[in-house]
Amino acid sequence: MLPDADAAITRDGKALILAYDHGIEHGPVDFEPNPETADPERVFDLATHDAVTALAVGKGVAEAYYPSYDDDVSLLAKLNGTSNLWMGEPDSAVNWSVEYAAELGADAIGFTLYGGSNNEVEMAEEFRDAQEAARANDMGVVMWSYPRGQGLKNDTSPDTIAYAARLGLELGADIAKVKYPGSPEAMGEAARMAGPTKVVMSGGSKTDDRAFLETVAGAIDGGAKGLAVGRNVFQRENPEEILGALEAVIFEEASVDEALELTSASAVADD
Amino acid sequence: MLPDADAAITRDGKALILAYDHGIEHGPVDFEPNPETADPERVFDLATHDAVTALAVGKGVAEAYYPSYDDDVSLLAKLNGTSNLWMGEPDSAVNWSVEYAAELGADAIGFTLYGGSNNEVEMAEEFRDAQEAARANDMGVVMWSYPRGQGLKNDTSPDTIAYAARLGLELGADIAKVKYPGSPEAMGEAARMAGPTKVVMSGGSKTDDRAFLETVAGAIDGGAKGLAVGRNVFQRENPEEILGALEAVIFEEASVDEALELTSASAVADD
Amino acid sequence: MLPDADAAITRDGKALILAYDHGIEHGPVDFEPNPETADPERVFDLATHDAVTALAVGKGVAEAYYPSYDDDVSLLAKLNGTSNLWMGEPDSAVNWSVEYAAELGADAIGFTLYGGSNNEVEMAEEFRDAQEAARANDMGVVMWSYPRGQGLKNDTSPDTIAYAARLGLELGADIAKVKYPGSPEAMGEAARMAGPTKVVMSGGSKTDDRAFLETVAGAIDGGAKGLAVGRNVFQRENPEEILGALEAVIFEEASVDEALELTSASAVADD
Amino acid sequence: MLPDADAAITRDGKALILAYDHGIEHGPVDFEPNPETADPERVFDLATHDAVTALAVGKGVAEAYYPSYDDDVSLLAKLNGTSNLWMGEPDSAVNWSVEYAAELGADAIGFTLYGGSNNEVEMAEEFRDAQEAARANDMGVVMWSYPRGQGLKNDTSPDTIAYAARLGLELGADIAKVKYPGSPEAMGEAARMAGPTKVVMSGGSKTDDRAFLETVAGAIDGGAKGLAVGRNVFQRENPEEILGALEAVIFEEASVDEALELTSASAVADD
Amino acid sequence: MLPDADAAITRDGKALILAYDHGIEHGPVDFEPNPETADPERVFDLATHDAVTALAVGKGVAEAYYPSYDDDVSLLAKLNGTSNLWMGEPDSAVNWSVEYAAELGADAIGFTLYGGSNNEVEMAEEFRDAQEAARANDMGVVMWSYPRGQGLKNDTSPDTIAYAARLGLELGADIAKVKYPGSPEAMGEAARMAGPTKVVMSGGSKTDDRAFLETVAGAIDGGAKGLAVGRNVFQRENPEEILGALEAVIFEEASVDEALELTSASAVADD
Repeated sequence: MLPDADAAITRDGKALILAYDHGIEHGPVDFEPNPETADPERVFDLATHDAVTALAVGKGVAEAYYPSYDDDVSLLAKLNGTSNLWMGEPDSAVNWSVEYAAELGADAIGFTLYGGSNNEVEMAEEFRDAQEAARANDMGVVMWSYPRGQGLKNDTSPDTIAYAARLGLELGADIAKVKYPGSPEAMGEAARMAGPTKVVMSGGSKTDDRAFLETVAGAIDGGAKGLAVGRNVFQRENPEEILGALEAVIFEEASVDEALELTSASAVADD
Repeated sequence: MLPDADAAITRDGKALILAYDHGIEHGPVDFEPNPETADPERVFDLATHDAVTALAVGKGVAEAYYPSYDDDVSLLAKLNGTSNLWMGEPDSAVNWSVEYAAELGADAIGFTLYGGSNNEVEMAEEFRDAQEAARANDMGVVMWSYPRGQGLKNDTSPDTIAYAARLGLELGADIAKVKYPGSPEAMGEAARMAGPTKVVMSGGSKTDDRAFLETVAGAIDGGAKGLAVGRNVFQRENPEEILGALEAVIFEEASVDEALELTSASAVADD
Repeated sequence: MLPDADAAITRDGKALILAYDHGIEHGPVDFEPNPETADPERVFDLATHDAVTALAVGKGVAEAYYPSYDDDVSLLAKLNGTSNLWMGEPDSAVNWSVEYAAELGADAIGFTLYGGSNNEVEMAEEFRDAQEAARANDMGVVMWSYPRGQGLKNDTSPDTIAYAARLGLELGADIAKVKYPGSPEAMGEAARMAGPTKVVMSGGSKTDDRAFLETVAGAIDGGAKGLAVGRNVFQRENPEEILGALEAVIFEEASVDEALELTSASAVADD
Repeated sequence: MLPDADAAITRDGKALILAYDHGIEHGPVDFEPNPETADPERVFDLATHDAVTALAVGKGVAEAYYPSYDDDVSLLAKLNGTSNLWMGEPDSAVNWSVEYAAELGADAIGFTLYGGSNNEVEMAEEFRDAQEAARANDMGVVMWSYPRGQGLKNDTSPDTIAYAARLGLELGADIAKVKYPGSPEAMGEAARMAGPTKVVMSGGSKTDDRAFLETVAGAIDGGAKGLAVGRNVFQRENPEEILGALEAVIFEEASVDEALELTSASAVADD
Repeated sequence: MLPDADAAITRDGKALILAYDHGIEHGPVDFEPNPETADPERVFDLATHDAVTALAVGKGVAEAYYPSYDDDVSLLAKLNGTSNLWMGEPDSAVNWSVEYAAELGADAIGFTLYGGSNNEVEMAEEFRDAQEAARANDMGVVMWSYPRGQGLKNDTSPDTIAYAARLGLELGADIAKVKYPGSPEAMGEAARMAGPTKVVMSGGSKTDDRAFLETVAGAIDGGAKGLAVGRNVFQRENPEEILGALEAVIFEEASVDEALELTSASAVADD
């Protein structure tokens, strides 16, 4: 963790990362609830919303779309990822070199580490190379710290998530993206373990507005520094509305009730 | 996917790739129906047909023949491939460096990815290196996206083919070559999932003219941007005829009936 | 072992290394007895104590905190380490390149070797690269020489610890950190086997002051050149007190009784 | 396959390669029938015979002897090879870099590929590196194309040998050395599959003069471009005689009867 | 094998290598019969004896002691070695780069190859890199050629040792160190198989003076070019005496009886 290395993908020290790596990780099935979400252009448009501090995509998507959004979107280059056509011990291919990500204008790199996997050692060494190359290119570093493997039954227990957050600090991430450990207190403990590394909560699957915002608000109160979200935003019919509400909760200290009021207002007004 | 990176191997945004990697993938058995097809010169001659936008061959064949066809054929360097003498979990050797392919004058690279194989992670990382080297050499990138492995029973289901096409986009291919998923609708869905990455249908084994052209026409109508074909062309006695018909269907919006009429005309007239 | 290569992390030829790699090796559970110890700043403050000749931390912790302590703390860059979420045959990821450690101002590198593990050969070769890069950067080399693996039942027997110490010499470490083999005599034998490579005893888990100091004093008398300690210092309420006592025993030839008297005096006076 | 790349190890488009890699592949047992054959000098002397277009040896033998024969022998650097002390799935160590072979004055490289082995992918990639390095150093490329592995029962069937020959072409060999598939027709089919890549027949174990020459003559008539031979020459008492006869059959279109007459003449007269 | 590459570690074409890699290969147990032998300085002193043409040690020992003996001892850098804490299929870690060995002033490299091990292919490729780097640095190459592995029952049979010696020649060693195959005749056969590569016999465990000298004399008569010895020298109370006797047998054509007379004379007189 280097102070300010994540400045280009944060706002007032907090982050709202729009994650769009479902096409590789899960495939088209994730776009079925709202078929338009298969179109990256729609998600890039969403990422221009003021609430969004960074958009996480893979190399091919960035090649095709980022040149048109260079001025309006901060690019978080998700370096590794693997299809779920394959079902072995958790692992992830490094599909993108840091040097090429820098060439395309990326502001930061994103990297998944499956702590506890039989592939943890190899993945950690790949992360090392990526992290140090990011430093050489003045890019921030975000770790998807997701303990997973044959030795891990419940990968969202408070202890596991706190360990995951700490790994972010120890290994040199500026931001650690972790699963929600079930309570604001547990999220706070994870944030405390990560020290100066910012912990952002992973958005998980789609829920209703109030439940989602309350979880996010609780996480922020607990000590999380933001949210990384995908389906919970882009699968909605009016994703701008929820972005406006999230902006209020994360960056403007609004209550959930105040934020919910925004969801009936025009999302366009937020832009 | 980089806009226009595949310009040298497409025509009006569509592709008809003549694939000739059977000698390594299947061995001489594929030439038995028409023994003359073992001779690469015959296939290079075919590739000079106007219908053909690129010829995919391995390194040794390119070394021997491409210098004589440099002006008339666009070379798609098929980088990886493996004999079927070996029968383990799907994998493919990288037999050709991008740098040497560029030196020989190749216009694009071709690379097989067996998504779902236990070797997917390693293959994806080899693809990464090849894709980025292709970018550095201004060459287009074609992925043979062929899900295959112990976790995959039916590798031509619409869901699998749509996922295969999407992997082409996510990982940075300009063109994704996929198996035919059984219907024009399913091919269209695959094309939609690939967004700006062009999806071309794989030609499969030899069928009669009408059945073949109808499948191709349906795929094009569905959204495919062309065809990659091997045996279905070069095993015929008059392969120029079917190339003429394919040209009509793919590039000239001809109906299957109109195209079939060409198969009785002189193929030479097409050149 | 190169004469004087460890000068920056020793004092009069002896070492008291404060080790703080528990966040990666064991996770937050190691901080539970004293939750404040999760905060690296507290440990960096401790490391400014005169008794401490070097602080061993991982890359991310060093990135965040070392710039503020550059003048007052000697940095021992602990290069490898792995979470205990993973439970395979002992192995350790190299999380930090020597070059980047040098860039951050590290004075020496620390590296774990699990002799006897099925991964011994690979780890030894990683150590080779790190050791030679340390030489090129004028940094000292400390080996955590910890025999461990399926072939090793009791990894603190005198024979095993003597072998561990000898491996430090043979492979080129300036300092070998080994477990306490149970008696001052066995520690002395280990030190004799390491020849000019300094052997420091690993602090182990927390015990009471007298027992701890007597073990350390015995080890020093036996021939050990110091101590590497973590929990036994930082988990205490007044860690400065025990550091003062250790300083007396290790560097000032004080008896245990004399040193224990210091534990009631102000640790601040030692600074 | 690059036209003329093998000019230094062929004569009128044909090759008689003297292979002397038995010391590594089989060990001293291969020298027992004629103990003098253990002495490389004797084989280098033989290789000065006009009939021999290249001598294939390993690195250590070349280092010791080739400087004295530089003017009179064309060196085929056999890059890989492995002892038969080891009995796992077929594999071969790369014992010699192309760069060092070039430095020693080698005219071409030789490389074994065990198609069908579980190690085929790795071996093919090692061949790629060697082949491209040979191109960069203007050296010819000879593949020992020997299908072998757990999936292959009969490795000299016509289909397997034809596939082996084709792999030589596809992967970029100038010459493919294959086992004799049992008949001149099968050898001709293999040669046809290899196209411009020259197919040479592997000499096999020692037989009587007429049988040997008839097999060679048949292979040449079938389409083979020569012979690679070891024991069948150097284990004889008067190896120059059989070299003279082979020269007649391979390069001078002599009948077997005519060639056999030479075996009673002085071999010295051939030099 | 390059003529004269081993000049710095031989005398009149013969070698007496003092090997001192027991600390890594076997651990302190090898020093127990004579505890002073744990001290490398004692062995470096021994190596200044005129009889000794080279001293083989690991990197860490060389770093610490060789600078003081640079003028009086020829350094044979033993590059690989592994503890016997590990008990898998024979393998050996490369603990020392050739470049760093050259920087420390080494005259030659030593490298163990376990022919017949499942790791033979990998070890041979590591040997290749080391051997060629040695050539680039004008250093001699000594192979510890020790067939060992699951396929090998009796690793000192004449056939196995002859094969081991031949591997030294084939792979490019200047000197091959092999186990004693049981008789002078078998040693001679091994030497003959190695051709210009010098074969030296490995000293084995400690025996009485006459038996040891007779074995050595027989080996030399048989064709061996010297001896590599460790425990059989340094475990003795007066190791200089036996060195004097070995010098007489190996370099001065003395009979065993003549040599034995020297063992009662002052070894100091030999210096």
